[in-house]
Amino acid sequence: MRKINVGICGLGTVGSGTVNLLRDNAELIAGRAQCELVIAQIGARRPNPACDTQSLNVTSDIFEVLVNPDIDVVVELIGGTTVAYDLVMGAIANGKHVVTANKALIAEHGGEIFAAAAKAGVMVGYEAAVAGGIPIIKALREGLAGNRVNWIAGIINGTTNFILSEMASKGTPFAKLLSDAQAKGYAEADPTFDVEGIDAAHKLVILASLGFGIPLSIEGLYSEGITKLEPLDVAYADELGYKVKHLGIARQSSEGVELRVHPTLVPHSSLISDVDGVLNAVMVNSDAVGTTLYSGAGAGALPTASSLVADLIDVARRSACKPESWPPALGVPVAQLTAQPMLAIEQIDTAFYIRFAALDKPGVLSAVTKIMGDAGISIEAIIQREQPVGEQFVNVIILTDVTKEQQLEGAVAAIEALDTVRDSVTFIRVEHLDQ
Amino acid sequence: MRKINVGICGLGTVGSGTVNLLRDNAELIAGRAQCELVIAQIGARRPNPACDTQSLNVTSDIFEVLVNPDIDVVVELIGGTTVAYDLVMGAIANGKHVVTANKALIAEHGGEIFAAAAKAGVMVGYEAAVAGGIPIIKALREGLAGNRVNWIAGIINGTTNFILSEMASKGTPFAKLLSDAQAKGYAEADPTFDVEGIDAAHKLVILASLGFGIPLSIEGLYSEGITKLEPLDVAYADELGYKVKHLGIARQSSEGVELRVHPTLVPHSSLISDVDGVLNAVMVNSDAVGTTLYSGAGAGALPTASSLVADLIDVARRSACKPESWPPALGVPVAQLTAQPMLAIEQIDTAFYIRFAALDKPGVLSAVTKIMGDAGISIEAIIQREQPVGEQFVNVIILTDVTKEQQLEGAVAAIEALDTVRDSVTFIRVEHLDQ
Repeated sequence: MRKINVGICGLGTVGSGTVNLLRDNAELIAGRAQCELVIAQIGARRPNPACDTQSLNVTSDIFEVLVNPDIDVVVELIGGTTVAYDLVMGAIANGKHVVTANKALIAEHGGEIFAAAAKAGVMVGYEAAVAGGIPIIKALREGLAGNRVNWIAGIINGTTNFILSEMASKGTPFAKLLSDAQAKGYAEADPTFDVEGIDAAHKLVILASLGFGIPLSIEGLYSEGITKLEPLDVAYADELGYKVKHLGIARQSSEGVELRVHPTLVPHSSLISDVDGVLNAVMVNSDAVGTTLYSGAGAGALPTASSLVADLIDVARRSACKPESWPPALGVPVAQLTAQPMLAIEQIDTAFYIRFAALDKPGVLSAVTKIMGDAGISIEAIIQREQPVGEQFVNVIILTDVTKEQQLEGAVAAIEALDTVRDSVTFIRVEHLDQ
Repeated sequence: MRKINVGICGLGTVGSGTVNLLRDNAELIAGRAQCELVIAQIGARRPNPACDTQSLNVTSDIFEVLVNPDIDVVVELIGGTTVAYDLVMGAIANGKHVVTANKALIAEHGGEIFAAAAKAGVMVGYEAAVAGGIPIIKALREGLAGNRVNWIAGIINGTTNFILSEMASKGTPFAKLLSDAQAKGYAEADPTFDVEGIDAAHKLVILASLGFGIPLSIEGLYSEGITKLEPLDVAYADELGYKVKHLGIARQSSEGVELRVHPTLVPHSSLISDVDGVLNAVMVNSDAVGTTLYSGAGAGALPTASSLVADLIDVARRSACKPESWPPALGVPVAQLTAQPMLAIEQIDTAFYIRFAALDKPGVLSAVTKIMGDAGISIEAIIQREQPVGEQFVNVIILTDVTKEQQLEGAVAAIEALDTVRDSVTFIRVEHLDQ
């Protein structure tokens, strides 16, 4: 049987999961790869008690792995975009295939990395970089390869989905839920990447590039986190038949491409609204098959290892072939990716949920509906909540039809300027995901 | 650019969809395949008005396509297991790759077909044979290749799912729903394959072989259709927090493999319970990633064409490589598939929903619970419905814990033998799909 030598750089949670999976399922993996996957070296600055490396060749100099002439493929699990960048580019320069779980690195430097890999005749696998154990990269790149992709919408960050699921079921405010998530290990000590949508943005950039054949670039992407979301709005949304999910949305139309990450109302009837807790899910709408959905564990040692090992098996099989026959990392060769105009958030079309506190007296609602009408915005539903939010104020909630965000912003400013409306207007985008 | 010549045999709904997709997305497909996919010949006994073949080479002798020296890959869309078998084996014998949507052919003759293909050095793609446009074959064979699969559960027949969804929402009896489905074109004139579970059984056999590395065989598979299902039970199930779905379930354990197709109660909290209408969905539980779910259109011209074209793109790419590097059709070479003991339906462990009409008088329930207790079956819930089902009878519904089916059958016989119980006992299996 052929064999391929794997060098693993980084022995944290995922690194240790990968070593364990390669070991525990060695026979099954060799059968499916028709090739033995040998852990030839591990580069780790410090040992990990979760991983028995006694019989393995471990070096504390991770860069040693790149120059080890025995290694065929380097698994990069260092994270970040500095050392990891050097490691991946170094591995490629040394003629080694690369498999990585690093979404930031791929989103920010993928173009350069894939071009270098193509030139060096090596593969770069990154299934683990998006949605953990869900084989969404393979689905988009190969399974849906006959389709023109219209849009992609995904719950692609488990931390925010866990927090939003708890907010929906318990009504607890964000700050408390974040500290709970940190205590449970679902959120990092510095949660910015997750809760501000940066992690989701990186993943969305990758999905959009693959789906639309555009270069990897975060430029023009609109990102909004969940830190300002209030349980009140999640509860109102639920009453109206919606869940609030933190979605990454990519869409291409004749006007251009939109990339956005933000809290979104999705109808209860949409399958993705039921994807709760730390799970991830990605919906892909494309011309031939329509909408397909992929859900599962978006993080964790073994789910991520599952994707890394799938990539290693592909590398093992395909390394026996000429590079021309490999599916290009982004579906088409980097040189054939074609930039499209990016739509600013003001230019996108979407429906909205709006909430504000208004004086409970005649004429207030008619002033508001006039503003909406003048802005050309149709109202789907308008609800005045009985519970008082102050001496004389009540909450008003409006669901709009699809409109240009710019129109909505104008209307919101006009509503905020009304004497009868207190403070600012809260608005959240609504997506029906039904076509 | 390389090019590959495609011969399409059969120009019905799917054939016409495939021609149209290959034509409409030709440039995009060529970019992703790095190869031009040319429709070199179509074999069709009669023309299809939905497909303009004016500029194409059409023959009414489908077998001409196999001997056409220009053809590299034959797309078999004849259906059935007789002519299609000859066609596929003939194509292989002539050194042509094959792509097919034919689940019956693969389930019944796949072992022989894949072995012949391996010997002849050609590929056989069958992504379209299971769950239409959902890339579930690729997910199982490649995306989850590092995992040991524990179980697979799927809604893999759109006709039955449409009927059950309507039964749940409208309470209409089966016979009426079937004629509605036939009028809508969701069910065939002869619906036996769909509603008796034969179509689902074929697909389940394929999924199980791929997931568990066992030979393709329908032997030992238990199949039960939806023809006897009553709206009453669907309504009771709903009240108890369950939907009734027609599932194909494959599970492997230390005791052996179980393959079964039957109506199943699944909890509302399970994502698959919300997959309604003609949609399909497949859940895969495996050791590293846990449970992943794949949903989308399970039938139709373009969704099926989407999977056929994905296979054609794989063929186009991989045909430049040596056969040793191709992923084997069933994940491992046919010779390495390993049979496992098959569990008879009496040997499986599952929970049950039971309904019967009992005399509304003291002592009846205690007799029933004693029978269950004596059989070692724990009761999860017991409900006596107030509405009378006859002069003195009321409906009693019991949800059991997981038990051996054999135990349950014994208990059911004992309950039916009670003087206080009228007619037979209805029972439906319950799966929680939560681990």
